[in-house]
Amino acid sequence: MEDVHFEPVRPGLLRAPSAKLGKSEWAEIAAELEPRLLRLQFEHRESDFPLIVVISGEDRPGAGELLARLGSWLDPRHIAVHALGAATEEEREQPPLWRFWRTLPAKGQFAVFVGAWTAQAIVATARGVKHPDFDSQLEHIATTERAWVENGALLLKYWLDLPPKKLRQRLDEAHEQRFARFDDMDWGLATDFERTNELAALALERTGTECAPWRVVDSRNRRNRDAVILRSIADELERRLAQRPARPVHVIAPVVPDAPTRPDPVPNDAVDETTYREELGELQAQLDKCTRRAMLQGLSAVVVFEGWDAAGKGGAIRRVTAGLDPLCYQVTQIGAPTAQELAHHYLWRFWTRLGRPGRLCIFDRSWYGRVLVERVEGFAQLEDWQRAYAELVDFEEQLAETGHLVHKFWLEIDPKTQLERFHDRENDSLKRYKITEDDYRNRSKWPLYAEAADEMLQRTHRPRAPWQVVPAVCKESARLTVLRALVARYEKALG
Amino acid sequence: MEDVHFEPVRPGLLRAPSAKLGKSEWAEIAAELEPRLLRLQFEHRESDFPLIVVISGEDRPGAGELLARLGSWLDPRHIAVHALGAATEEEREQPPLWRFWRTLPAKGQFAVFVGAWTAQAIVATARGVKHPDFDSQLEHIATTERAWVENGALLLKYWLDLPPKKLRQRLDEAHEQRFARFDDMDWGLATDFERTNELAALALERTGTECAPWRVVDSRNRRNRDAVILRSIADELERRLAQRPARPVHVIAPVVPDAPTRPDPVPNDAVDETTYREELGELQAQLDKCTRRAMLQGLSAVVVFEGWDAAGKGGAIRRVTAGLDPLCYQVTQIGAPTAQELAHHYLWRFWTRLGRPGRLCIFDRSWYGRVLVERVEGFAQLEDWQRAYAELVDFEEQLAETGHLVHKFWLEIDPKTQLERFHDRENDSLKRYKITEDDYRNRSKWPLYAEAADEMLQRTHRPRAPWQVVPAVCKESARLTVLRALVARYEKALG
Repeated sequence: MEDVHFEPVRPGLLRAPSAKLGKSEWAEIAAELEPRLLRLQFEHRESDFPLIVVISGEDRPGAGELLARLGSWLDPRHIAVHALGAATEEEREQPPLWRFWRTLPAKGQFAVFVGAWTAQAIVATARGVKHPDFDSQLEHIATTERAWVENGALLLKYWLDLPPKKLRQRLDEAHEQRFARFDDMDWGLATDFERTNELAALALERTGTECAPWRVVDSRNRRNRDAVILRSIADELERRLAQRPARPVHVIAPVVPDAPTRPDPVPNDAVDETTYREELGELQAQLDKCTRRAMLQGLSAVVVFEGWDAAGKGGAIRRVTAGLDPLCYQVTQIGAPTAQELAHHYLWRFWTRLGRPGRLCIFDRSWYGRVLVERVEGFAQLEDWQRAYAELVDFEEQLAETGHLVHKFWLEIDPKTQLERFHDRENDSLKRYKITEDDYRNRSKWPLYAEAADEMLQRTHRPRAPWQVVPAVCKESARLTVLRALVARYEKALG
Repeated sequence: MEDVHFEPVRPGLLRAPSAKLGKSEWAEIAAELEPRLLRLQFEHRESDFPLIVVISGEDRPGAGELLARLGSWLDPRHIAVHALGAATEEEREQPPLWRFWRTLPAKGQFAVFVGAWTAQAIVATARGVKHPDFDSQLEHIATTERAWVENGALLLKYWLDLPPKKLRQRLDEAHEQRFARFDDMDWGLATDFERTNELAALALERTGTECAPWRVVDSRNRRNRDAVILRSIADELERRLAQRPARPVHVIAPVVPDAPTRPDPVPNDAVDETTYREELGELQAQLDKCTRRAMLQGLSAVVVFEGWDAAGKGGAIRRVTAGLDPLCYQVTQIGAPTAQELAHHYLWRFWTRLGRPGRLCIFDRSWYGRVLVERVEGFAQLEDWQRAYAELVDFEEQLAETGHLVHKFWLEIDPKTQLERFHDRENDSLKRYKITEDDYRNRSKWPLYAEAADEMLQRTHRPRAPWQVVPAVCKESARLTVLRALVARYEKALG
């Protein structure tokens, strides 16, 4: 069977020709297509990429019919269907893409999203939700889909095209009388149809990209609709199983002129014990107040700690949290990814660990591992970590736009200070577990890590997600600097 | 160091003697305790049980101080702290214990819960939430904690006892001026203190059990509080690492007199093609209406399909979902547990897969695997599956009490029918994947599975979570029976 043909309308938008498919033609196609899809499903389960199928567009009843067909042909144990509907309260506190990240399939997994992120943006905007802004939602969708595809996912997006009159007829003919239509989802029937249509057209244009094109399918003839989509899934899956596609040229986030730099030499702003104790207590009390107010106002914060081994991240974090109510914060320690995490997009483990609304959510190491340890140690390929700058910036932009306060600390020490602290740890029976051969090995790569850190600061510093370089040769003064910065950011945000 | 001594007040309630600990006494204890705890933490990570520590009681600021100490002594990367605070909208639609199940640690993991499920029940009830009922919440807590412990968890519950006057003083002395107190959590300060106190006393009595006793600790002296709790954690962890405790005599849920039985012989109520088509379409349309109304009313349903291999579960489920909006249902296929799932309590993978509110959530196989395949194949020991009846009943009771509609189908066929279907599958190139050697092996154990099925029906049939045995020699009539039953249950519930 030849590949199903899609006509390119413009880059990122493909259209399948309309056709009326008779019963016998359908039977012929199905006889070949069903075993082919079943075979491909089995092969895909052994593969190293996730398959993400999006079914969107005006024809929502059609999505249900298509799913029923897919579920009866394939092994339904290995298809996850996500029709999420309206967002819950918790979901509304997070970036719009959060709920989809949480259900993203891993390598060898197959997920179908009905409506999905694009329909969500259209529906919310048509209903008058102004925040986050429609344009920026579309931009994040395009960036995110690109990130998924470039990190290996096979993403297939189908738009079921059905004129509103025909849609209404479909709904009516299915059952004489319906108690409830989900007008928020059946937006083909929205009262302000003109407006919804405009938004949908804009969404198609902006989220139909070369690496994640929309495939528009005429939904008037059901058999043709199913044949086109199921054949297309088989075609694309077969192609992908045979050969990993050439990656498009990747985008590197630009260097930002006003990014902070690492000081050389690192100043040692020693602070005397009494001043330290007093100021520490004062700042902890202030931060306690801030986080309590933030909790009541639902202001979430995401704070990242990065820096050299033994720069004092753990100690600084403990001073930050020591005065806080356990309800107001959570600390997430990031180590090497587990097997399950490695089977997902590298950002998945961070999206799924964002805190509950209103919390100070602290990451001890973070997503920046992609451009630090993974870069230097070769766990990520050149194009992977180069591309990551833009992906990380986009991730943080989404948080900032949803009202999260984002702040990133880089704790800076010099090699000599590090070595002294390694030796101190080795001589301390209680801290000996903190020091391994890896630490010494990493030390020998100091210049490589320094280069990675500098490039990270330059490419990912943003006004709403700034980096702050903290000289940490004097641990005490580093802790005060961190606490002062957090209190200042909270006070500004809380007004 | 000798074990820290707790005085038994009554079964399930232990009290540590009050003491004032001086600075030097504390230093002496700490010098020994810190390395001991660190060593135990490392050993525990290699063990086969989760460690769950609950910090509850009046002294909430104390919980924060204790956590800070724990985080600085131990390796914080391997302690998960859960202070969940007020429930989100989504959480309120689920049984109160749902949010805690989702964060339950696996084998070798260590989680600290602040406040936790008991405080949640007290706070909600004190605030006038009548549903679910306080008594029944306490009962479910006791049953669930027992299930955790009997399935291997080390559960340690500490109650920080602090008179309200002292609590107020603590809060004030920490910081001169507080912008916000979390009165919902600081219930030691609740306006109706008498009432809260009564509820707390009742909660301590009902959830302090022999296998999960409350350890009450005087919180007035901070050093003594920390020393007692941290020593107690070390003692209990050390004891448990040395020897798995003898299990208490387990409870077997009683046989219910009116439970349905499997018919012998299985009737073959053949239905003619035309009647089948007509009735199927009609029932599907009715169920579509029901699920749409349920969605709007937030009425969730949990429907279980169990039965012999090749009894037609998959086909019946497809007929149930074929007419529905994808938004209204989700199907969860249960196979062998993954490594991650095996590291958790066996019910964890079901708690974490409950559907979004308002959905028809279908399980193709279910938690009953514990008393069917796991029993027959020896994956669960005698006491494990015998105890499971009561645990499964309690799980479903929690769902029913939260307003979920619970219904369970057993699809019944005879061995001859099964063999015919196996052969049909083998001869069908598209269904060949559905048949493996395991299926034939299981067949040889028919009498053992029959015994297991009968006992399951007898011990887990409940008015609000009934079993329905569906004769399935005629697939078509089985599908109609299933659809009819679902429509009937929905219509009754929707009114």
